[in-house]
Amino acid sequence: MTSAPIRVGVLGAKGKVGRAICEAVEAAADLELVAQVDHGDRIETFVDTRTQVVVDFTHPDVVMGNLEFLVANRIHAVVGTTGFDDARLATVQSWLAENPEVGVLIAPNFAIGAVLSMRFAEQAARFFDSVEVIELHHPNKADAPSGTAYRTAALIAAARAKAGRGPSPDATTTELDGARGADVDGVRVHSVRLAGLVAHQEVLLGTQGETLTIRHDSIDRNSFAPGVLLGVREIAGRPGLTVGIDPLLDL
Amino acid sequence: MTSAPIRVGVLGAKGKVGRAICEAVEAAADLELVAQVDHGDRIETFVDTRTQVVVDFTHPDVVMGNLEFLVANRIHAVVGTTGFDDARLATVQSWLAENPEVGVLIAPNFAIGAVLSMRFAEQAARFFDSVEVIELHHPNKADAPSGTAYRTAALIAAARAKAGRGPSPDATTTELDGARGADVDGVRVHSVRLAGLVAHQEVLLGTQGETLTIRHDSIDRNSFAPGVLLGVREIAGRPGLTVGIDPLLDL
Amino acid sequence: MTSAPIRVGVLGAKGKVGRAICEAVEAAADLELVAQVDHGDRIETFVDTRTQVVVDFTHPDVVMGNLEFLVANRIHAVVGTTGFDDARLATVQSWLAENPEVGVLIAPNFAIGAVLSMRFAEQAARFFDSVEVIELHHPNKADAPSGTAYRTAALIAAARAKAGRGPSPDATTTELDGARGADVDGVRVHSVRLAGLVAHQEVLLGTQGETLTIRHDSIDRNSFAPGVLLGVREIAGRPGLTVGIDPLLDL
Amino acid sequence: MTSAPIRVGVLGAKGKVGRAICEAVEAAADLELVAQVDHGDRIETFVDTRTQVVVDFTHPDVVMGNLEFLVANRIHAVVGTTGFDDARLATVQSWLAENPEVGVLIAPNFAIGAVLSMRFAEQAARFFDSVEVIELHHPNKADAPSGTAYRTAALIAAARAKAGRGPSPDATTTELDGARGADVDGVRVHSVRLAGLVAHQEVLLGTQGETLTIRHDSIDRNSFAPGVLLGVREIAGRPGLTVGIDPLLDL
Repeated sequence: MTSAPIRVGVLGAKGKVGRAICEAVEAAADLELVAQVDHGDRIETFVDTRTQVVVDFTHPDVVMGNLEFLVANRIHAVVGTTGFDDARLATVQSWLAENPEVGVLIAPNFAIGAVLSMRFAEQAARFFDSVEVIELHHPNKADAPSGTAYRTAALIAAARAKAGRGPSPDATTTELDGARGADVDGVRVHSVRLAGLVAHQEVLLGTQGETLTIRHDSIDRNSFAPGVLLGVREIAGRPGLTVGIDPLLDL
Repeated sequence: MTSAPIRVGVLGAKGKVGRAICEAVEAAADLELVAQVDHGDRIETFVDTRTQVVVDFTHPDVVMGNLEFLVANRIHAVVGTTGFDDARLATVQSWLAENPEVGVLIAPNFAIGAVLSMRFAEQAARFFDSVEVIELHHPNKADAPSGTAYRTAALIAAARAKAGRGPSPDATTTELDGARGADVDGVRVHSVRLAGLVAHQEVLLGTQGETLTIRHDSIDRNSFAPGVLLGVREIAGRPGLTVGIDPLLDL
Repeated sequence: MTSAPIRVGVLGAKGKVGRAICEAVEAAADLELVAQVDHGDRIETFVDTRTQVVVDFTHPDVVMGNLEFLVANRIHAVVGTTGFDDARLATVQSWLAENPEVGVLIAPNFAIGAVLSMRFAEQAARFFDSVEVIELHHPNKADAPSGTAYRTAALIAAARAKAGRGPSPDATTTELDGARGADVDGVRVHSVRLAGLVAHQEVLLGTQGETLTIRHDSIDRNSFAPGVLLGVREIAGRPGLTVGIDPLLDL
Repeated sequence: MTSAPIRVGVLGAKGKVGRAICEAVEAAADLELVAQVDHGDRIETFVDTRTQVVVDFTHPDVVMGNLEFLVANRIHAVVGTTGFDDARLATVQSWLAENPEVGVLIAPNFAIGAVLSMRFAEQAARFFDSVEVIELHHPNKADAPSGTAYRTAALIAAARAKAGRGPSPDATTTELDGARGADVDGVRVHSVRLAGLVAHQEVLLGTQGETLTIRHDSIDRNSFAPGVLLGVREIAGRPGLTVGIDPLLDL
């Protein structure tokens, strides 16, 4: 690649996540970190430094003001800040309507492996007689199943329903309470809590004589970084609003 | 589904594979087994019984004659017989040109799990810093790596090259000969041979803090049956020649 | 090994299991299959052929008569026939008291991998903060959890109690019914039922920063053969009654 | 347990490992952290505070002086400092001869899971036709295979040789260079290097129809803490020199 590096800025640069993103940008040969802005700094810095893409991991209270400024100044944005409901998304789209060449990516989950594994599970679900989900987490987690496992099971169930697939076969007649897991839209989900684990999920799909297993293991909080960099590289080529990193994966 | 069952015939019905397919068709509520033909039987039986789709697991010596008859009689075909080169495929297409409403599916591998896992590995490869393949088989296998592992690694390598991805990072400076596996187009492949195994493959993909693992386990020779039934159900809706079951998976 | 092969006989030689054992004995260089006896055949054949060890996979109705004959004739026995309660075991011991050089092995489970994995789980249980069991079987299984998983969890629980270990940590406050599995003596057990599986079990043990997983996969009914052969080779050196193959494993 | 907590001191208390041990001791209800000593501090503090067990993670240059002092003052020691050769061990034993009620544990590896998995692999090796080792690490590792994998394979090979087991069956006739891994005393070892991994090892054992897998995953550097605490709790009951934590595991 002989093209000039993309000029990247970070909003919330001094936060824990922001610092990790700054490091990741600096380590990437095709990206250049040109501006770091945090609480109290001038957001105009991005204009002064001719920043092309800004990464925003800030706070729901300030992210809308940030986005209004960025879009008005024709700077692309990759946003991991939470709190976007339909009303907020509509507002962002109204700003983008006036600057249609600008791209904004807003994603609740930048872990590429998690997103891919959900997608693959959804795609594969209708070809197998049986599907079950096992999620495994550290023992300090309060909810079981995990939010990701819920979503994964719901996606699987919807894909199977659409394909006219009935429930997974199950001849269980004698069950010790809870052995067969929780039922999420007809898909069995099992939650393991174990010291020494972080966040893991396994989707098991089976048909006559063969099984397919899709497993995702996440062992540190920085697993969002590769997804953020992917967004930074792709967003200039995707004008308008993009929600979730799935569309960037071109699956 | 209240529609009438699809009328299915089997060519090579008395062979080991053919018998397994007859059983699978009979067990499926939406399919009806109306004709079984083997060496010495009249192929015209398929016309007499108004067969809609014929499954052919016969022999390279007779499969072309079978297909010519089936297409001419406007019967769809799902073919697992081997030996199709470009010349044979062109001949089949010339027959189909005269009966464009007929569908013929010719596939070297009907194991849905194997096909899906190769496809998912290919799709995911460019999003991860590292990819390696481990294939595990029974100890009577003569070649290492397996043909599937070769193909998988080649697909991964091509996907990474297309995305401008360099090689997986590897700081190894001291290696006991063979420890790091074989190199297939820059992708490391490890072959395990173990009593008690049949045919298994694991694709490991990793980036900062997370890994994605796609594992396929095949434990019996009948794992082709679900793929054949998928072909039987879909081929009427796919006129012309289809090679491999990938297109049927709509990924 | 230059010693003469052990002279082996099989009782129930025409049954499915018996035939598999005959094959396994014939395939072993250090064993010689000298007599096959089934329903209707003369049991005295074992004496005529100077059989040293007889394998009995017959029926609860006839096994006691078989054993009385074998012990009286100073022939060692390896027994997989079911139905041994304390009264039957006491009877066998009374026969052995009169022929103290004879060895009889009676085992409910000859799968070495299953026995070893239970034992290792039991040994490891007290060193880890957390332990959970996942068992995975084909979808035709009627009971959940499996008998093996019950036994494994009970062994784990007893080992932890003896070591003064409290329950595994678990901060779950919001649970979808069944997500955390069944509770067997305080150990969580999860039962997966999936087409394409046979019989599998995973024991997960975790402490700060590390986990240990002991997994057993059984994919065919012949997995008893290596355990039976082990019994045949060892029983002459173990006079008296041995229950279960654990003692033969010298762990 | 109503007995008084064990009075524990830490040598090298300000180092990275030392701090982690101090935290672990403080978090354990049956242990009391009574003294922290580092470079420049008075070692007599342990006497003043009536310390019962000292944990030493310091440096090869100072550890012998530390041990001489501790043994002379009848304080038990748990030592993770490296650099002990036969000569050093003999010297420690000479000190212990004069204070035979003192216990000293010197261990190169306190990760209980790693030690257990090696031991289980060794115990199981002779019961299976086939054994192979896969070790998986982060891509910055310089050597392949890992030291642990070498040791594991050597233990397996020795156990098989002792039991008269021949090599694992392998019909490979066509091999792409390296596919079948490295050969360590006849045991195949495969080294995977992947971003997103830390330190993992899998021992696969197989026989007819069944496999047993022993897997160890270590995801953080603190995985030594539970092993150190085990040593602290046990060493008072084991006078004399103990090398490695294996004897404490009572397997």
